[in-house]
Amino acid sequence: MILANARLLTMDGPEIDRGWVEIEGDSIARIGAGDPPGPFEDMGGDLLMPGMINPHGHLPMTLFRGLAEEVDDRLFRYILPLERACVTEEVVRIGTRLALLESIRGGVTTVADMYYFEDAIAEELAASGLRGVVGQTVATFPVPDAPDIDAAFAQADALAARWTGHPTVTPGIAPHAPYSTGPEILSRVAAWSEAHPGLPVQIHLAETADEIAWAAREHDRSTVEIVAEAGLLRPGLIAAHCVYLTEADRALLAQSGAGVAHCPRANGKGGRPTAPIADLAARGVPLGLATDGAMSGNTLDLFSQMAPATIAQKVAQGTRAALPPSQVLEMATTGGARVLGMADRIGRLAPGFRADLIRVSLDDPRQQPVYDLAATLVFSTLPSDVRSTMVGGRWLMIDRAVQSLDPAAILADARQTARTFGARIAEIDRSAP
Amino acid sequence: MILANARLLTMDGPEIDRGWVEIEGDSIARIGAGDPPGPFEDMGGDLLMPGMINPHGHLPMTLFRGLAEEVDDRLFRYILPLERACVTEEVVRIGTRLALLESIRGGVTTVADMYYFEDAIAEELAASGLRGVVGQTVATFPVPDAPDIDAAFAQADALAARWTGHPTVTPGIAPHAPYSTGPEILSRVAAWSEAHPGLPVQIHLAETADEIAWAAREHDRSTVEIVAEAGLLRPGLIAAHCVYLTEADRALLAQSGAGVAHCPRANGKGGRPTAPIADLAARGVPLGLATDGAMSGNTLDLFSQMAPATIAQKVAQGTRAALPPSQVLEMATTGGARVLGMADRIGRLAPGFRADLIRVSLDDPRQQPVYDLAATLVFSTLPSDVRSTMVGGRWLMIDRAVQSLDPAAILADARQTARTFGARIAEIDRSAP
Repeated sequence: MILANARLLTMDGPEIDRGWVEIEGDSIARIGAGDPPGPFEDMGGDLLMPGMINPHGHLPMTLFRGLAEEVDDRLFRYILPLERACVTEEVVRIGTRLALLESIRGGVTTVADMYYFEDAIAEELAASGLRGVVGQTVATFPVPDAPDIDAAFAQADALAARWTGHPTVTPGIAPHAPYSTGPEILSRVAAWSEAHPGLPVQIHLAETADEIAWAAREHDRSTVEIVAEAGLLRPGLIAAHCVYLTEADRALLAQSGAGVAHCPRANGKGGRPTAPIADLAARGVPLGLATDGAMSGNTLDLFSQMAPATIAQKVAQGTRAALPPSQVLEMATTGGARVLGMADRIGRLAPGFRADLIRVSLDDPRQQPVYDLAATLVFSTLPSDVRSTMVGGRWLMIDRAVQSLDPAAILADARQTARTFGARIAEIDRSAP
Repeated sequence: MILANARLLTMDGPEIDRGWVEIEGDSIARIGAGDPPGPFEDMGGDLLMPGMINPHGHLPMTLFRGLAEEVDDRLFRYILPLERACVTEEVVRIGTRLALLESIRGGVTTVADMYYFEDAIAEELAASGLRGVVGQTVATFPVPDAPDIDAAFAQADALAARWTGHPTVTPGIAPHAPYSTGPEILSRVAAWSEAHPGLPVQIHLAETADEIAWAAREHDRSTVEIVAEAGLLRPGLIAAHCVYLTEADRALLAQSGAGVAHCPRANGKGGRPTAPIADLAARGVPLGLATDGAMSGNTLDLFSQMAPATIAQKVAQGTRAALPPSQVLEMATTGGARVLGMADRIGRLAPGFRADLIRVSLDDPRQQPVYDLAATLVFSTLPSDVRSTMVGGRWLMIDRAVQSLDPAAILADARQTARTFGARIAEIDRSAP
């Protein structure tokens, strides 16, 4: 298959005004400028670029989107009780399907998920065609899918046994956060990780001021130091947020090979300062751009995240030169691939890389004229400008029509579930002190 | 005409799950819940809400969108030289038409413009059907449409003479900024304003740290105080930005009746802190949400501005509770109407108000489920979700098809002009020290 008559942003070399991409099986065989070497699908002058990579989120939480927007203590007041009461495997499947639908429509081709019932999420992911990492949650608070820690580890074992080697789904483990696991369980996760080489570990890290205070009070160190001492700060760790970092934390991160998933909308909506992304980038830390769950960031595409990411750095540094759009685009593609340990196969359009790509229209009046393609993509392009989405050589969306999922059924299921959630939230509010 | 089977967000009372709006001539006659009183256009369950009001911008600057993104000194290095060299009446018409096309497609029904060749802009505005305020720029730097200050005032006179009383176009004057006019010219603007009662005055105010330093150095006072002493800080003044305000400035603004046009994306992209909007709101200052020109904020719809506005306040205050989505929606509608002195006729869906409204789809997977309509609109809705746009009872866009403009011709003209601009920028760069 050849896609031609396209503007190409490969993230692997200079822009190509008019070029072509040849695909064999699930990968890119060749890329060239000008006329294609054979029969082709005409991209009509639209942009082809790597599909975006979302290295941190909670797919099923689409069902929580817009709940308790103004409540600072939402995790303990609403989310955990609602999860214990309402989150079943079926609910997880419904929320995941909605998230996958939104991701495909928004130009995301790889997602990382940390939640519950990850085997079901892996099945939905595989059925959708999207590429992804699934991490079984381990935490000391009661969770909907495991009666205790041993059961959670057993689920992680089963997940790894079933999905290791799958072409698009990568299993892993997800200790919730240092404060919700503690050093001993983190050490046990490190041992699990040693026994499952190559599988990613996802964690929330240095996300809140409360977490920093807990680490100082209980352990007289930083939360990054706790993770490092447990043996987890190393390649394969996907650390989400990393908002509150000391100088020592930054140096530790830079030496470790761990990756950071930056969630600018979720952090900003939580009233938190921006993570020191420009500094981490200068230190060579692998950096991706992520959505977090839809209860935190509301949307699951990375177009929504790119402008907030660069604007927060410009404000923090007091100059428009901070974190230019080209660097934000790298975070959304090659950077995310590094964070997920997949930089040798996704995040670029290049021979030998997986054919994970999106066709993006640049013809909306809001996008014109185009002097600076990176600025156009970061500041003027919307998820709705993505025309088609391909993962592993398979079109998952063609001209806005998703091929691998049933949108009407997914929306109907989601609305039905939302009515249950809304009723439960009302109960929580009635019974609150 | 009756529009029915719509979810209604009137900004004039509680949401209506399923209701209707009856329109007579250019205004709303009646609004009701349930079944309509006669034959109707079926809105298919979509949302009807007031069209958004953009109280500060520079319409023709769509042609500068994406230029010199990372250059802090862009005003003096690029914008002013480019304007002197390239900005003719024809270029202004081309850029304005692109801006009007984008505005209509993005759900904006009223714009305020301050630029050059305002009579031509007024003509384009009238032809497009959009409602707007046009302000002839007065400044001490050389401008493209007037050899000197006297000529600029003469143009303002002519603009007022021709357009006062027009049903959709309101003329006015626009002293560029305190530092680019000085106290004497501001006083002359105040006199002009006295002679033209009811016509708005637009100004950039307290936008940059350089401006504050200039006012302190040259006049030993704040820039807001300079405007107040010139007699301009009063109802009818549209003050854009207001980022750097002392306690005294805030009190002056609150007493004055002047309105503030908040431009969160433009300010953030410029590396500036957020304007103290939550504080100004608490003091009762009329507050609108604005895009600024496309060279500063890149897009001309207010969906792009709502999330950045609330997120910046949450970060500044350290809580998710700051500036809730419902308040941001007020800024984008009724607030903007107050800033423009039109709160008695636009910004709400209410009997007697102009029929300026938009039909918005809430059915995208990214928007579902809807627990909190304001949050859905602020965080999950895009300008591309606007299906239809009406101003003064006339559909300017129906199902994404703009009725009053020729999109293909506009885009072709804009691209052609952009080639000229790009060449000129290259010349400036070559000749720079």
